[in-house]
Amino acid sequence: MPVSLAELAVRFGCELRGDPARQVDHVAPLAAAGPSAISFLSNRRYLRYLGSTGAAAVVLSAADADACPTAALVADNPYVVYARIAALLHPPRGAATGIHQAAVVGREAVIADGVSIGALAYVADGARLDAGVVVGPGCVVDSGAVIGADTQLKARSCVARDVVIGQRCVVHEGAIVGADGFGIARSEDGWVKVPQVGSVRIGDDVEVGANTTIDRGAIDDTVIGDDVRRDNLIQVGHNVVIGAHTAIAAGTAIAGSARIGENCLVAGHVGIVGHIQICDNVTINAKALVTRSIDEPGVYSGKFPAQEARQWGKTVGRIRQLVRGPRNGPGDAG
Amino acid sequence: MPVSLAELAVRFGCELRGDPARQVDHVAPLAAAGPSAISFLSNRRYLRYLGSTGAAAVVLSAADADACPTAALVADNPYVVYARIAALLHPPRGAATGIHQAAVVGREAVIADGVSIGALAYVADGARLDAGVVVGPGCVVDSGAVIGADTQLKARSCVARDVVIGQRCVVHEGAIVGADGFGIARSEDGWVKVPQVGSVRIGDDVEVGANTTIDRGAIDDTVIGDDVRRDNLIQVGHNVVIGAHTAIAAGTAIAGSARIGENCLVAGHVGIVGHIQICDNVTINAKALVTRSIDEPGVYSGKFPAQEARQWGKTVGRIRQLVRGPRNGPGDAG
Amino acid sequence: MPVSLAELAVRFGCELRGDPARQVDHVAPLAAAGPSAISFLSNRRYLRYLGSTGAAAVVLSAADADACPTAALVADNPYVVYARIAALLHPPRGAATGIHQAAVVGREAVIADGVSIGALAYVADGARLDAGVVVGPGCVVDSGAVIGADTQLKARSCVARDVVIGQRCVVHEGAIVGADGFGIARSEDGWVKVPQVGSVRIGDDVEVGANTTIDRGAIDDTVIGDDVRRDNLIQVGHNVVIGAHTAIAAGTAIAGSARIGENCLVAGHVGIVGHIQICDNVTINAKALVTRSIDEPGVYSGKFPAQEARQWGKTVGRIRQLVRGPRNGPGDAG
Repeated sequence: MPVSLAELAVRFGCELRGDPARQVDHVAPLAAAGPSAISFLSNRRYLRYLGSTGAAAVVLSAADADACPTAALVADNPYVVYARIAALLHPPRGAATGIHQAAVVGREAVIADGVSIGALAYVADGARLDAGVVVGPGCVVDSGAVIGADTQLKARSCVARDVVIGQRCVVHEGAIVGADGFGIARSEDGWVKVPQVGSVRIGDDVEVGANTTIDRGAIDDTVIGDDVRRDNLIQVGHNVVIGAHTAIAAGTAIAGSARIGENCLVAGHVGIVGHIQICDNVTINAKALVTRSIDEPGVYSGKFPAQEARQWGKTVGRIRQLVRGPRNGPGDAG
Repeated sequence: MPVSLAELAVRFGCELRGDPARQVDHVAPLAAAGPSAISFLSNRRYLRYLGSTGAAAVVLSAADADACPTAALVADNPYVVYARIAALLHPPRGAATGIHQAAVVGREAVIADGVSIGALAYVADGARLDAGVVVGPGCVVDSGAVIGADTQLKARSCVARDVVIGQRCVVHEGAIVGADGFGIARSEDGWVKVPQVGSVRIGDDVEVGANTTIDRGAIDDTVIGDDVRRDNLIQVGHNVVIGAHTAIAAGTAIAGSARIGENCLVAGHVGIVGHIQICDNVTINAKALVTRSIDEPGVYSGKFPAQEARQWGKTVGRIRQLVRGPRNGPGDAG
Repeated sequence: MPVSLAELAVRFGCELRGDPARQVDHVAPLAAAGPSAISFLSNRRYLRYLGSTGAAAVVLSAADADACPTAALVADNPYVVYARIAALLHPPRGAATGIHQAAVVGREAVIADGVSIGALAYVADGARLDAGVVVGPGCVVDSGAVIGADTQLKARSCVARDVVIGQRCVVHEGAIVGADGFGIARSEDGWVKVPQVGSVRIGDDVEVGANTTIDRGAIDDTVIGDDVRRDNLIQVGHNVVIGAHTAIAAGTAIAGSARIGENCLVAGHVGIVGHIQICDNVTINAKALVTRSIDEPGVYSGKFPAQEARQWGKTVGRIRQLVRGPRNGPGDAG
């Protein structure tokens, strides 16, 4: 589906520098783009590839436009414009509407028009799928779950009983929404499992990464706001609340009953302990461990960057020496 | 199923302060509880919600009972009593007994009475399911696996060949028990895979979290003791041994051949290196990296809490300066 | 299948000290081996078990041979020789060739001879499985995916559309290859999803751990070199490139567009930030966070080992004191 640069400029509000009739039909990286491709520059790390790009056009900011050897689509936010152009040129391959003959759908499931259910997916009695929902192959949607319009469940994802998911969400492969939280009480005879009687409520436009897990609430629900974006292999504990527009990178774990505000950015491998609150507009850098509530917007860190190992060994040794004090002698503090 | 406070007090050994005939039929959090709900207070963080609760009754300790505006069930261990009351009021919805017509069960699988096998689950020839086992939709139970009585495999979990799981366990959604361990030997031509000929043996009353992985042994078995409780997204390497009653939080990784004692508490994102031993009654705090054997019960830590990022940057810079020494000038140590 | 020590010595190039006619039929650990078992010693931590082993023979290095109370197979690299002997004595149980009647295979999928497809697996139209491929029960192989000869997909793993996997690979249970990368662009109205139009290309002899995720490229492909070995629960972001023979342990996360060289060893729980490059022959120790490109081969670290918690608290306090300086008084720096 070739599109002219003129049309792209008009549709996405860019200034076009170059031939308005030139057509493009796919996106490609600067270094590999050919004459029917459109590329973009949003991270200046890749500026060195701009001068020699073979792309028909490049989406970039005004500051970089003079260096562009081909047509330029100048945008205030080139990455957003690129994302929208890419979505236009590479529409998702529509799943076949209808229920695959090898899917298993309970007779009392409520299935709206235009739903697609893939091979070997299971939708239990009492589940509800609204219009345009796509259930990928191998998914499980349990009893009482509600999936909002146009939400996609990718292959082998799992939505447990009574979980409510909003509209236009994407639950990626292998993700699990609504497993029991980790609730155990210590008795004299060992652990007693605490029934997890809450559920999970997810807003609209939420993305849940591959093999990510979101636990159901222990007593209240776990609540994920609109437009929250989560990467892969993230753990969200029971009764966590995450505000709208917050994004969380891979490998992060959020313990039970923590509350995270809106418009936060949480990097990868972050740990957030239970029962604390993080206000809106907080950025947490990679591998930080948040142990106390954060009341001030800002950026938070807590991880030493990796060093050459002998140098790092000196750092550890020096710190232990400082803690012991100079007169304590050679005893090992650790 | 309404239950009177008198019955709860007798059954769970609490002192009742309030109307013994009052009935409750569900649990709810202090702040949201209505007149037919019972609530609890075990974390004093939530004491501020006690005074205005609308619950019919609250399970709490003697120290908090005077502040309770409604009926109180006074217990030495309110959280355990709450767990038991919640289990009474919210019994698990029983899975339909029998084999779903869309399940696939090998002709030579041994299936006891009262077993439930969900839609699109696969139980291979030579697997054995004891009485009362529940195999959720989409599960795989491979040849030679033995699942003890009343154990539940939640949706899409996977038990590999020859794995033995005890009684009353819960394997949560997406968990994988018995994948090959990470055994590779370096040759001049590249890596050689080391066959993983051991298996996994899991005791009774064990909980395995969603998308958690427990590798089979390289040569001996991986062994998980009774009443071990594991959260989501945990990695347990080959030939690990975990003692009874130990609990492990999300995101932790335990490398091969490590041995962890009984009654340990391992927080989230902890790393334990291979071939070391941790004695009984050890607590390891979040994100610590245990690099050596631990012979003394106690609490162990090793992670800086997150700080405001500029402050953290000063910490990193100051430490590097201390390691370099004051006279080394501005060279970058890292 | 008993094999004589003479045959093992010849086949694997070891020096045999002991009875060449002695036969073994399985491998076992030193401490548990009986008279028909062969064992090995490659980690000197286990030397204490050598003197009392009941094994028929032990694979070990020349330095340890004198201490061996039974027949010895002396090898330069005992672990590699052990791996090969174990593979000989414990051949993988062959999956039944052919397509299980409860598998779902698209009519336009291209299935070579000698392929095995397990129960409740789904192979979409347009997928291609080369000779000897094993697709385990519950797997999903989507349209356009190509699986090279003799590659095994273990139970419930998932290969997304257009992903290309080489020969002799093993994709372990629950792994997901080709989910969308985490591409989001911030607009004034919230996040805009960036279409992930690249794919994943995996070389030969690659191992992908259980529940590990490898994202498809945003615009280029994500590329995994030959003989890369990955453990469980690892996240590989979009457009990551990993060089041949690199091994990565559990729980590590590699952010988008990072490039890792050949013959690297990356320990568990490591974090590698996006858009950086790591050269060949780099070892990164457990839980390190790599924030900048690494141009020098060597070993890199960045994590304090766990200490007894009060001692660790002193370390944190002392460092904060040093950052504040002695005259700043009691204000809390953190």
